[in-house]
Amino acid sequence: MRDGFLMVISGPSGVGKGTVCEALRAKRDDIKYSISATTRKKRPGEVDGENYYFLSLEEFKEKVKRDEFIEHAKVHNNFYGTPKDYVEENIGKGNIVILEIDVQGALQVKKNFPGAVYIFLLPPNLEELRSRIVKRATEDEETINLRMHNAEKELSFIDKYDYAVVNDEVDDTVYKIECIIEAEKLKATYLGGNK
Amino acid sequence: MRDGFLMVISGPSGVGKGTVCEALRAKRDDIKYSISATTRKKRPGEVDGENYYFLSLEEFKEKVKRDEFIEHAKVHNNFYGTPKDYVEENIGKGNIVILEIDVQGALQVKKNFPGAVYIFLLPPNLEELRSRIVKRATEDEETINLRMHNAEKELSFIDKYDYAVVNDEVDDTVYKIECIIEAEKLKATYLGGNK
Repeated sequence: MRDGFLMVISGPSGVGKGTVCEALRAKRDDIKYSISATTRKKRPGEVDGENYYFLSLEEFKEKVKRDEFIEHAKVHNNFYGTPKDYVEENIGKGNIVILEIDVQGALQVKKNFPGAVYIFLLPPNLEELRSRIVKRATEDEETINLRMHNAEKELSFIDKYDYAVVNDEVDDTVYKIECIIEAEKLKATYLGGNK
Repeated sequence: MRDGFLMVISGPSGVGKGTVCEALRAKRDDIKYSISATTRKKRPGEVDGENYYFLSLEEFKEKVKRDEFIEHAKVHNNFYGTPKDYVEENIGKGNIVILEIDVQGALQVKKNFPGAVYIFLLPPNLEELRSRIVKRATEDEETINLRMHNAEKELSFIDKYDYAVVNDEVDDTVYKIECIIEAEKLKATYLGGNK
């Protein structure tokens, strides 16, 4: 039995990670979003330590060197990373820290944070995934095809995860993830046994 | 992701295994009790294949030899055993077969049926356990002390189980076990990955 832990919610682009995480956070006080560090410029209205931890390139690189990130990546010439200390502090308080992240990032986290709970969100089927990506209407045909190709590749990593949840209805997915949280808290391995 | 599985509900005498299992079965159609085989005489009103499978001593020993029991034990000069075929048939249908069993029996099951889910029911505290045993009012002081001694010894096996659930209020315990069922069904390992 344990209280706090890191819960990694991952899956292909378009599967609905953001909607599910937002619904979970709105429902429960014990769920905290992991706050990322970034080297990109602060946009109007953004608050340091709330939206992101805004760091200079030097500060960021120093933290990478000191192994202070659970994972980090370069996206469009900016660096992004998940600071360990925020996650560990909140776990210590008995909270569940959720990290919404793509499959590549999740695999990186797994190396650095083996005690986390890994959930893979699945689309009801691939046609549905395509239709969700198309509905966003922010991308051209080529980008959509690339995303679909990546999604199919990412599905092959599902066995690296602890749980696989088909995200059909958000409420149903939230119920299932709440069950996973409850079950994880009841695990006997965290009683400090001599296994 | 999987549907059916064997769920072993165990814990010290007096912890409330029977009440919890009955409440679970009353609530869900997909939960089936495991039916034991026994060599003891059929009592009036008992139905073969419903309360027990009634076997002769020879039939029982033959089944032991053929490894057709998940576990078996001798109690008061009669043999009791859990037949594999009933469990496997119901798991195949997508049901959850519950086996309510003492700690010794559960450890035996674990050797023969590693794919099962093992739940240890805990009393809120040892004083509460004693008071529950006393309330049954069917046992003398010496037997009560022996049960308490055994309970303390059995608690040390908790790390062999998957989950530990404190049985304080039955409704709460049933909710937790239903979460465990849901989470177990969502496990990614049962997707037939190449882990």
